[in-house]
Amino acid sequence: MSVLTATYQVYGKPGSFEKKAEGIALGLTIGSWTDLPLLEQEQLKHHKGNVVSIEEFEQDLHPLKPDLIKAELEIAYPSINFSADLPAILTTVFGKLSLDGEVKLLDLDFSHDLLSHFPGPRFGIEEIRNTLGVRGRPLLMSIFKGVIGRDLDFLSTQLREQALGGVDLVKDDEILFDNPLTPFESRITTGKRVLDDVYEKTGHRTLYAVNLSGRTSELREKARKARELGADALLFNVHAYGLDVLQELAEDDDIALPLMAHPAFSGAFTSSAFYGLATPLALGKLIRYAGADFSLFPSPYGSVALEKTAALALGKELTMDSPLKRSFPVPSAGIHPGLVPLLMADYGIDCVINAGGGVHGHPAGAAGGGQAFRQAIDAVLQGETLQDAGKQHKELQTALELWG
Amino acid sequence: MSVLTATYQVYGKPGSFEKKAEGIALGLTIGSWTDLPLLEQEQLKHHKGNVVSIEEFEQDLHPLKPDLIKAELEIAYPSINFSADLPAILTTVFGKLSLDGEVKLLDLDFSHDLLSHFPGPRFGIEEIRNTLGVRGRPLLMSIFKGVIGRDLDFLSTQLREQALGGVDLVKDDEILFDNPLTPFESRITTGKRVLDDVYEKTGHRTLYAVNLSGRTSELREKARKARELGADALLFNVHAYGLDVLQELAEDDDIALPLMAHPAFSGAFTSSAFYGLATPLALGKLIRYAGADFSLFPSPYGSVALEKTAALALGKELTMDSPLKRSFPVPSAGIHPGLVPLLMADYGIDCVINAGGGVHGHPAGAAGGGQAFRQAIDAVLQGETLQDAGKQHKELQTALELWG
Ligand SMILES: [Mg+2]
Ligand SMILES: [Mg+2]
Repeated sequence: MSVLTATYQVYGKPGSFEKKAEGIALGLTIGSWTDLPLLEQEQLKHHKGNVVSIEEFEQDLHPLKPDLIKAELEIAYPSINFSADLPAILTTVFGKLSLDGEVKLLDLDFSHDLLSHFPGPRFGIEEIRNTLGVRGRPLLMSIFKGVIGRDLDFLSTQLREQALGGVDLVKDDEILFDNPLTPFESRITTGKRVLDDVYEKTGHRTLYAVNLSGRTSELREKARKARELGADALLFNVHAYGLDVLQELAEDDDIALPLMAHPAFSGAFTSSAFYGLATPLALGKLIRYAGADFSLFPSPYGSVALEKTAALALGKELTMDSPLKRSFPVPSAGIHPGLVPLLMADYGIDCVINAGGGVHGHPAGAAGGGQAFRQAIDAVLQGETLQDAGKQHKELQTALELWG
Repeated sequence: MSVLTATYQVYGKPGSFEKKAEGIALGLTIGSWTDLPLLEQEQLKHHKGNVVSIEEFEQDLHPLKPDLIKAELEIAYPSINFSADLPAILTTVFGKLSLDGEVKLLDLDFSHDLLSHFPGPRFGIEEIRNTLGVRGRPLLMSIFKGVIGRDLDFLSTQLREQALGGVDLVKDDEILFDNPLTPFESRITTGKRVLDDVYEKTGHRTLYAVNLSGRTSELREKARKARELGADALLFNVHAYGLDVLQELAEDDDIALPLMAHPAFSGAFTSSAFYGLATPLALGKLIRYAGADFSLFPSPYGSVALEKTAALALGKELTMDSPLKRSFPVPSAGIHPGLVPLLMADYGIDCVINAGGGVHGHPAGAAGGGQAFRQAIDAVLQGETLQDAGKQHKELQTALELWG
């Protein structure tokens, strides 16, 4: 039978969890069981939610209510109860339950059958690497900075500088929407001209992820137009729209562009230790299932930082074996070249090193900033310390002096 | 100048908040200010976020970090920075900020100009009352129960029972999706036959809100079809999709049906005291702006309960003076007739009393359950106690004996 198994974290009195779990399993499916006539039980048994496991953590006391301990409940929901789309799934497993006190959705386990309804990334890590012709090292990405209120000339100059530093990808600032100074379509065509020019001059190819924004029903047409205009990739604030909107973009053969999921707004439902969704589920598994080729998230090391266990588990969700292609983990926020060894220890080569200030704030400009990152990546690949590599490479040396 | 003012709750050391607020105001707009040349400051000044106010609450210590106090920061964002849609707005004011530690978005204040881009409810309280011909009392709604795995005959019988009790509205269970046993379109046509029949026999009109579900891009066509088939209203799990999806349904003249926003999944981003969105903003103001005619939320009194201050503020957001029409507050979850006086004290007559178990669990069946609620409402309107009214009305008396 096709099922979806949800794992929840709850707090309660020791021994209280069986009743709670049974209440969830029934409440979110057929409503009642023991008081049903046998004939109805027979009719409904394939629709009944079932408690799979209950694990109590006696040592994990609630920080404010020390008579309560933590527990994890696994509940299996028959897929026959919902349509195979994420809104139906989220409503089933965490609809009214999300409002019912301290309960956090830690994980969802899709049976193979159910998973087959989800596209996963259209390109994935391997095809993105083919497009770029880059193998054996993490990709490097930088972000436009301070572009609100600026014109196309400003963006063009900034894009060129970034590309000249050897970054593989440049992404729009997620708060840059369609606007008269730098309209969506002009950003694509202008960006393309700049990056083609850099490629001709240097042989280095940089891809530009333009921010797809606006009203939900207009996104597909805009994205198709973006493809026609030669866009390389789309940045998307999926959590301000909805996971199913991302999935529909990923599934559209007329769009067929790499999709970069930004974590904007996701902190609203992932940050609490007691409520919402676990980060590896929200920014890892579900983002991959819905079809993003890249998932951005706060690294464990910057000013905006994820707890390290969660950041690692997130990366694993994006890249572990699955019938779906793998998505690039993009640990972000406050990244400078000195953090490259840590990021590569955490994520290996199949990740994207993503920096804003760490590129633009380099004393030699964005081009120097990008070079410093590439030098740091090369050093790690060659088993050199950054300190040693800095002696050979002045951009890296400067970065290390500035940021440590 | 058209602005959007956001109010945030943060925790920090006394005196630390000015720097924090300035960092947000710049970080979510133009990035930097004091180090910009005067000419650029001149160019960018209309794009700059501004700190409007900072209020420290010296008595409100952080429950786990007693050296931190609570503060509220008001920051004004120029509307010129974003397109006038909720995804752009949420990304601007709570995009990366949502990931930046303990910060909760308490409120958004839309300038008149910005608000004009939002539809609000198509019908609102007054037109829903006109449709029903019901004035001077709260509406009464009941919910299908235990319908997963059941067929159309089961639903029809349950719908008829509910309507015979005098409820004004019946809504689908939010976890009932499109399915072979009770397909969306058949629910509409069958429901219509049942309710027309009850109307012919009793003169009482009940409206049925059918659950609009499935893939995002198919919702509009399904909703238009629902209208063609004579649907009365649509239930929508907006938070599993996205606020903008609701708004597009509300704006569509070919749909033009009352929209009922279900709070499923919203607890994921409203329940924490430290993260996410305040409930009155999420389930009140934004739901109204996006165009729901009804907003369901947990009442302060049931097993799944909202804190009372938030529940009242939520109702106020839905009904306070505004250029937009008013939405019905629908306090829900664990409602029985004995709670009617409390709900009417809280929300007046312009609300919907919504019950599931409190209708179906009545010893005289759903019809008796509905009658008990109508009797309780009449009693409150006439200034009678429920106890006195119960002496005249056996359904109410039975309910009071059962649930208090
Ligand atoms: Mg698991
Ligand atoms: Mg306010």
